[in-house]
Amino acid sequence: MDDDKLPIKMLNDRVLVEADDDAERKSSGGILIPATAQMAKRLVWATVVAQGQNVRACEIGDKVLFSPDDRYEVEVQGNDYIMLRERELHAVASERNESSTGLYL
Amino acid sequence: MDDDKLPIKMLNDRVLVEADDDAERKSSGGILIPATAQMAKRLVWATVVAQGQNVRACEIGDKVLFSPDDRYEVEVQGNDYIMLRERELHAVASERNESSTGLYL
Amino acid sequence: MDDDKLPIKMLNDRVLVEADDDAERKSSGGILIPATAQMAKRLVWATVVAQGQNVRACEIGDKVLFSPDDRYEVEVQGNDYIMLRERELHAVASERNESSTGLYL
Amino acid sequence: MDDDKLPIKMLNDRVLVEADDDAERKSSGGILIPATAQMAKRLVWATVVAQGQNVRACEIGDKVLFSPDDRYEVEVQGNDYIMLRERELHAVASERNESSTGLYL
Amino acid sequence: MDDDKLPIKMLNDRVLVEADDDAERKSSGGILIPATAQMAKRLVWATVVAQGQNVRACEIGDKVLFSPDDRYEVEVQGNDYIMLRERELHAVASERNESSTGLYL
Amino acid sequence: MDDDKLPIKMLNDRVLVEADDDAERKSSGGILIPATAQMAKRLVWATVVAQGQNVRACEIGDKVLFSPDDRYEVEVQGNDYIMLRERELHAVASERNESSTGLYL
Amino acid sequence: MDDDKLPIKMLNDRVLVEADDDAERKSSGGILIPATAQMAKRLVWATVVAQGQNVRACEIGDKVLFSPDDRYEVEVQGNDYIMLRERELHAVASERNESSTGLYL
Repeated sequence: MDDDKLPIKMLNDRVLVEADDDAERKSSGGILIPATAQMAKRLVWATVVAQGQNVRACEIGDKVLFSPDDRYEVEVQGNDYIMLRERELHAVASERNESSTGLYL
Repeated sequence: MDDDKLPIKMLNDRVLVEADDDAERKSSGGILIPATAQMAKRLVWATVVAQGQNVRACEIGDKVLFSPDDRYEVEVQGNDYIMLRERELHAVASERNESSTGLYL
Repeated sequence: MDDDKLPIKMLNDRVLVEADDDAERKSSGGILIPATAQMAKRLVWATVVAQGQNVRACEIGDKVLFSPDDRYEVEVQGNDYIMLRERELHAVASERNESSTGLYL
Repeated sequence: MDDDKLPIKMLNDRVLVEADDDAERKSSGGILIPATAQMAKRLVWATVVAQGQNVRACEIGDKVLFSPDDRYEVEVQGNDYIMLRERELHAVASERNESSTGLYL
Repeated sequence: MDDDKLPIKMLNDRVLVEADDDAERKSSGGILIPATAQMAKRLVWATVVAQGQNVRACEIGDKVLFSPDDRYEVEVQGNDYIMLRERELHAVASERNESSTGLYL
Repeated sequence: MDDDKLPIKMLNDRVLVEADDDAERKSSGGILIPATAQMAKRLVWATVVAQGQNVRACEIGDKVLFSPDDRYEVEVQGNDYIMLRERELHAVASERNESSTGLYL
Repeated sequence: MDDDKLPIKMLNDRVLVEADDDAERKSSGGILIPATAQMAKRLVWATVVAQGQNVRACEIGDKVLFSPDDRYEVEVQGNDYIMLRERELHAVASERNESSTGLYL
């Protein structure tokens, strides 16, 4: 990567997330399925790392629920991230939420 | 899943439902067909577990009618749920409804 | 189905219909073709059983004309129904209609 | 069909037409091609039998020009009709038209 | 065709054109390619015979430029015509045009 | 072509261009690739010959940048032209442009 | 290319970028993968060379993040560039950005 450190900004409705390490699911046979190669139609959680100025649904550090199939990936400073759009988020897990649903991550 | 309990909130028009156990249909040969693997084009009922702030059509605990084909699934605290959007709901069964249609679940 | 009787309400533009028994057409060879397995592109009549609050085109008890191909089906209290949307209705047969077209069902 | 005579009304933009008997085209070899099985991309004429309240382009008895491919058909009192939508009509032949185009059916 | 002469009117944005006889192009091998079976993507000229009341781009007698592929055809009084929509016209050749482009048909 | 010279006018957003002779690209093996049969996804330059009254992006004589794949062609007075729409133009090269980009054709 | 130097202007929302030389990624086996032939779904960075008057998200010299698959390419003065549209940009790296995300290129 380029030496002089250029700060990166997400545009508009983009949400950059990092797959949770323990988000790997164990297939029934115990084989580790990395989050991004999850069964299609199976939603997964990831942590918000950066987001565009138009994003309202979540904040940096929140966990968000999305479908991992057919996703853009990007590598920044050696780390792999997934590029999402706000409308692709189904749910958010965060201390800020009142616990109305009784569901916890 | 992560230990510290983060309350989960559904976004916008999302409706999280749990398939009714007895919603499994018996194929003519008596084989149990799990709700989610229902014949295409066959609508099924499920119970609302959580919903986004924009949802008007139903409330938590209601039974809703939807098509099970091509659905997103998510596992929370070991339970399997189905992620829907309000516009995909065809009907609602709830004590709140006046019994105008004469149809009961 | 669940024992405590929950009244069912159709949502928005949904129209629940029941295929007319005698709506089965006899193929030229006299074989009974059940309404729902009608030749594609062939419209059939059915009776309105329930409808959402936004439906204006018909009322419960009217006969409506629609295309049976690629329809959602639902079973309520052991009866099979077809789930339609108002925009899929081509015509209505009802005593309320003046007999302008000279066509009768 | 059901005995008590229910008057039929077309909805919105629907136009019910009856193929003209003589509208059958003779293929070059003299074989009779029924109107509805016309060569694709070949427009045909038919007579308006009934129309929804939103239809402005024609009136009952007019001849209308449309593409016969991929059409809905319906049988009423033993007669076969074709169900069209107003936007699918290309031209109208009627005494009401001034003869501006110099074209006559 | 039916005997009593019903004047024909085009609807809305329809433009009825007649392929120019000499518009046939000679393939390199001298074989006559009728205008309507022109190579795809090759535009052709034809003469306006009739048009709907919403058409502004041309007048009866003008030459218009369009793509002949995948067109509706109609036969009126034994003549073959092509049915177009105004938005499918690319250019018009007419005495009314000032000769700004320096291009002539 | 027809003898009496009818001036041709482009309609609406159409832009008629003539491929630049030297716009042919030499494939690595030195084989001449005519502009119109350029590699897909490779943009080419051409000169504006005529344009509809709604076109703002360029003027007659400008060079415009567009994708040559899947284009309409038309022959006028023995010359071959390409028919474009304004929205398909990516860039314009013209003396009128200030040289802000530092890029020259 | 043509001798008289015509200044080139991008239109509307176009963004012309030049792939960063070091943007080539080494496949695990050390084989150099040119930026434009990047694995699908893998976003890459490039430098903005020119942009249309409607572009707000970036400025000439910024680094922008986009998906390299299925892109238009253009050659100007012997250099290869990629033609993008503003809405296809996911993120921008530039000194102008405050370092809110903590991510640097």
